[in-house]
Amino acid sequence: MATVLSVSGSPSASSRTGLLLRHLDQRLIAQGHEVIPLDVRAIPAEALLGADFGHPAIVEAAGLFARADGVVVGTPVYKASFSGVLKALLDLLPQYALTGKTVLPLATGGSTAHVLAIDYALRPVLNSMGAAHIVQGWFTLDKDITVREDGSLAVAPATAEALGHVVDQFAAALDRTPVLVAATAS
Amino acid sequence: MATVLSVSGSPSASSRTGLLLRHLDQRLIAQGHEVIPLDVRAIPAEALLGADFGHPAIVEAAGLFARADGVVVGTPVYKASFSGVLKALLDLLPQYALTGKTVLPLATGGSTAHVLAIDYALRPVLNSMGAAHIVQGWFTLDKDITVREDGSLAVAPATAEALGHVVDQFAAALDRTPVLVAATAS
Amino acid sequence: MATVLSVSGSPSASSRTGLLLRHLDQRLIAQGHEVIPLDVRAIPAEALLGADFGHPAIVEAAGLFARADGVVVGTPVYKASFSGVLKALLDLLPQYALTGKTVLPLATGGSTAHVLAIDYALRPVLNSMGAAHIVQGWFTLDKDITVREDGSLAVAPATAEALGHVVDQFAAALDRTPVLVAATAS
Amino acid sequence: MATVLSVSGSPSASSRTGLLLRHLDQRLIAQGHEVIPLDVRAIPAEALLGADFGHPAIVEAAGLFARADGVVVGTPVYKASFSGVLKALLDLLPQYALTGKTVLPLATGGSTAHVLAIDYALRPVLNSMGAAHIVQGWFTLDKDITVREDGSLAVAPATAEALGHVVDQFAAALDRTPVLVAATAS
Repeated sequence: MATVLSVSGSPSASSRTGLLLRHLDQRLIAQGHEVIPLDVRAIPAEALLGADFGHPAIVEAAGLFARADGVVVGTPVYKASFSGVLKALLDLLPQYALTGKTVLPLATGGSTAHVLAIDYALRPVLNSMGAAHIVQGWFTLDKDITVREDGSLAVAPATAEALGHVVDQFAAALDRTPVLVAATAS
Repeated sequence: MATVLSVSGSPSASSRTGLLLRHLDQRLIAQGHEVIPLDVRAIPAEALLGADFGHPAIVEAAGLFARADGVVVGTPVYKASFSGVLKALLDLLPQYALTGKTVLPLATGGSTAHVLAIDYALRPVLNSMGAAHIVQGWFTLDKDITVREDGSLAVAPATAEALGHVVDQFAAALDRTPVLVAATAS
Repeated sequence: MATVLSVSGSPSASSRTGLLLRHLDQRLIAQGHEVIPLDVRAIPAEALLGADFGHPAIVEAAGLFARADGVVVGTPVYKASFSGVLKALLDLLPQYALTGKTVLPLATGGSTAHVLAIDYALRPVLNSMGAAHIVQGWFTLDKDITVREDGSLAVAPATAEALGHVVDQFAAALDRTPVLVAATAS
Repeated sequence: MATVLSVSGSPSASSRTGLLLRHLDQRLIAQGHEVIPLDVRAIPAEALLGADFGHPAIVEAAGLFARADGVVVGTPVYKASFSGVLKALLDLLPQYALTGKTVLPLATGGSTAHVLAIDYALRPVLNSMGAAHIVQGWFTLDKDITVREDGSLAVAPATAEALGHVVDQFAAALDRTPVLVAATAS
């Protein structure tokens, strides 16, 4: 059983990224993991943008990262890269806030032309933060996620299968990360 | 004579990035260009982070980009990439806000180990926004910029020469961009 | 009138990249430019792989780069990046072999999922070689290029229009690069 | 005990990359792992460059990758990216030749300005090949590796310690990769 921080990096209230992460959280919870959801847009804007490392909301967010064994990082792809608000949060964390942690990178976007943004834009940032293991991520097309009238999420079957697979690989990797290695990672 | 928007993407009030850009603005002004300074941190945080494309501050910033013939984009390097606040602004501009424009990418940081962040992280974003010409940029080490007691900037000689050179190349490229090509760039 | 080196980086004899470049060469020739075609696979393998900077074929290729005002660089996308054979040639050129030159990056591939390889993989390499101006490139899907029985190339209409546009922008940029700037680019 | 393929991607006979990998191999062997060295430059040039997937040397190399539990990939940094000859080999392997495998990326170069080439250039390629776990890599400065008169390698103390650490982390990750996950990785 691991503690997973599930971070949505979307600036939008009706974000597919956010809905998707909350949907995938359920799969991790069903496997016995503790999941802590974190929506970047719920952090006060002046804390995120003011470079104020001591703001209580930033200190709290940093504490959530410190506690987590694994982190799911989800972002919409804008202008061929991750969202600015996600990066604004990461910028306020310690340089090695991901040391010893297992990370699952996820992205959503309108076109498959943005798929490589996960590996070329997001992954180098996560790696610079000392992540022990960044598992294979997944890019989900906006059109494959639909919100039902009751607010629940309908995911296209092939996408649901692929996402289930990457979440399970992430969970398997979480189970394999021994505390000792986490503690000594540079 | 061209109109240049000079954008500092630092979240910090005492930013070397900001000071450096304002310093370089003088060289462009001395060459007869109109320079409009824009500090991302002067934009209200709730406008930047709320995905509010209609906020007056965002509309105004978008207008500045639209008016400019050239754009200087300066960012500190954090976690192997550009700052989140800079990207938060870019995320709120039209997809092709740089179409037909000449762009000078600049970065500051504590270690030469971050030099490639300009070409691997920042440039692909600027390119996705349709920039007509992104000239060779420059990475300036923090230690090569010192603030004098009177608030003016002292730049190490070799760095000052290199920066003067990239600014002059940017200015030369600005002079060469015909309006017609700008208008038809995709 | 400019001299353009048109480099196909495909290792395959029946390469769509090669056919496409030779097809686009015609457009540049019709505009009055001198076009020199260079197929990386025509360079002796032992010269490319042996790190033999003095091999006559490498010296000749380096001379073609030195003579050119502009360079078209075409590559298939393999494993999310440019081809190894293309890079093997670039590795044998002087570090600043593209100084002062205008460059058009092109790629071909089987899926739009590889589009960003131009900006994230190829462009940083070209930039590190001192290119004065890397214009907007284009990624062409394999399925949009067909070889007719007579060996000529049929390009899907929308793709043909887009390619015509990027070639014309490249040609316009070529015409604007003054020799002096080329000579002093760092 | 695992089987490790240790691939040097240098085109040069007197390569520091090659010497460094053979040096690090000893540490893995001392820990009980089987290490298979592979120098890309030992593969016939016409096999590497001819896109000849059926050439016996390529079939043999592909077999070595298939057999390995882990792969060390070392490259000199040229023009802000990996070497062309390394990529020429990777281009000839199956798309998912690294599925289920643990990978250690290493680079050598003359300046710390090239450090990010590991994460921005090499890692996305390795990831596209399905690697299960790409551990934190290391960039070694040329000046920190010296060849003694007897042909053995002298590594600067701080570098030796850092390299020992990343090799040990790689070995620890190897031990944790269960065969089942390797078999089902997408």
